[in-house]
Amino acid sequence: MTRTMPSRRATIADVASHAGVSRATVSRVMNGLSTVEPAIADRVRAAASALSYRPSETARNLSLGRTHTVAVVVPDLGNPMFQAILRGVTRAAAEDGYRVLVGDTQEMTSTEMDAAIEARRRCDALVLCAPRMDDDRLAQVVGATAPLALVNRVIADEGVPQVAMDYGQAIGLIIDHLEGLGHRHLVYLGGPTASASNRLRIAALDSAEERHPELRIDRLTVGAALDDGWASADRVLESDATAVVAYNDLVALGLLSRLRELGVGVPARLSVVGVDDIPYARFSDPTLTTVSVPQDELGAAVWERLHEAMAGGAPRGPLWLEGTLQARESSGPPPR
Amino acid sequence: MTRTMPSRRATIADVASHAGVSRATVSRVMNGLSTVEPAIADRVRAAASALSYRPSETARNLSLGRTHTVAVVVPDLGNPMFQAILRGVTRAAAEDGYRVLVGDTQEMTSTEMDAAIEARRRCDALVLCAPRMDDDRLAQVVGATAPLALVNRVIADEGVPQVAMDYGQAIGLIIDHLEGLGHRHLVYLGGPTASASNRLRIAALDSAEERHPELRIDRLTVGAALDDGWASADRVLESDATAVVAYNDLVALGLLSRLRELGVGVPARLSVVGVDDIPYARFSDPTLTTVSVPQDELGAAVWERLHEAMAGGAPRGPLWLEGTLQARESSGPPPR
Repeated sequence: MTRTMPSRRATIADVASHAGVSRATVSRVMNGLSTVEPAIADRVRAAASALSYRPSETARNLSLGRTHTVAVVVPDLGNPMFQAILRGVTRAAAEDGYRVLVGDTQEMTSTEMDAAIEARRRCDALVLCAPRMDDDRLAQVVGATAPLALVNRVIADEGVPQVAMDYGQAIGLIIDHLEGLGHRHLVYLGGPTASASNRLRIAALDSAEERHPELRIDRLTVGAALDDGWASADRVLESDATAVVAYNDLVALGLLSRLRELGVGVPARLSVVGVDDIPYARFSDPTLTTVSVPQDELGAAVWERLHEAMAGGAPRGPLWLEGTLQARESSGPPPR
Repeated sequence: MTRTMPSRRATIADVASHAGVSRATVSRVMNGLSTVEPAIADRVRAAASALSYRPSETARNLSLGRTHTVAVVVPDLGNPMFQAILRGVTRAAAEDGYRVLVGDTQEMTSTEMDAAIEARRRCDALVLCAPRMDDDRLAQVVGATAPLALVNRVIADEGVPQVAMDYGQAIGLIIDHLEGLGHRHLVYLGGPTASASNRLRIAALDSAEERHPELRIDRLTVGAALDDGWASADRVLESDATAVVAYNDLVALGLLSRLRELGVGVPARLSVVGVDDIPYARFSDPTLTTVSVPQDELGAAVWERLHEAMAGGAPRGPLWLEGTLQARESSGPPPR
């Protein structure tokens, strides 16, 4: 196997020696500063080119007071939602020459604060997805890490860029859909109780019950994963509800799998609806009614607003993104 | 909302002024250097504590010649396999005090090389998942980015830590399973032709045909995603094969979805087998026979070997990880 790159990289001292100037002069030319005579700058650039010299990015960025990296801290890289946010921010930031440093707090609320502060110290800015952290801790982190942007967690501080999915709006769409099909008794399979987005969903249930006084919505707490949905089937069937509003698509798909094993017809006996429109939702049996979430738009919007804040721009207030109902096979009229 | 952290952070100049020493002395104390008189060092630490001063990590790391970050470059953050590798490396590296900088080359072979070299410059080391890059480009990257570790791409250079899933072994397990059930005519739904792991799978098909001379294995090229599996159903049915070996679980699950729409019984008319054991494989209809891949072990092994290389340890040769057959509902005897 051949290696076509030189094994020893030219240093700034090599370039200085080759051009007959000081290392500081080489550094000034490489950083594009205009305090070097043009003839000397030309000589330095020719030497750098002849030696295939590349300045160290780390050293250069530090001398300019920035690293061109942004930290993205998420609770769990295994969750498709956080993967999508990470991917969206990574791609949008790359277009502006920024790279992403990723932190995974493994769903431990206790480590979210330290992880966020520590990651921010290494980078120019922070994107924080902190659905579990309590308000006091969040306020401390916000105070210590600016510039930062918050994802799916809206706070009163207007100086912080904030982008959030409007999960309340998503739940409203689902309940109106099920109510319109004739359902009058629903059951909600709730996610982690500490989750800010679960609280948004529950507020939307309250508001839907005001909008539709004939509706009854039971609340259960199950979790956020496939297994949690699978394990909830008995409690769902005991509720006698005719339709299920799941915390997310994973919970809905896990429940569908168990209902199939039990021979419970969907939607003939029970309608099941999720939230997120993960890729698999179109391929399940039956295909899953859900609300699609503009994940790519979310990541790009987060970066756009954070980038403005890094440049000292005025904040624009929280951005709430809305979802779109995807009616598929898993929802239909209630049994007669 | 109250902020409990001071909004202006103390600088090194504040500490120097408070302690009545130079900034260089503060810096020496903060970096734990022993060239400062103990009494003065105590005064500096007291001043730093009183002002809640924290040294900049970036500046301190640079002065120590390292960033304590490792770059992980993957072709597509949307692919569950690369997400798992990223998560595994992130968690293992965190235990040694390292953070991960992530690069996503969006499946563009042309950008993999630049992205890898650029990411490495900002970090102490590189983990490269470069399944599409050709051998010449890969050799250039290896030459320019050490210390690095390669994932799912084995090269002759023994100095480079390398960890790879043995996809050939996985395909061998699947074919032996199907052959044992009585199948004699299989069809392979191949992934991207430039993919190194697709080449491993095809070599395993050749070897299985030698091992089982009665077998016939047709080869198709379809892709790596749910949609690719869905769209392959007509070609699969035209082949008259009784069993399908899919490139990965996404292709297998997409195909299952389309076969269900077409009313083709699985496994009564056709057995379908995937590779990877993604979380959804246990929840599909029918549940998917596949080969589970030790993804967490892979990420941890990559970091362990790279960390050794960063410390100047001798390389241990490529590590091949083996999978385990998960026989579920989607495979059975061929139709009579």
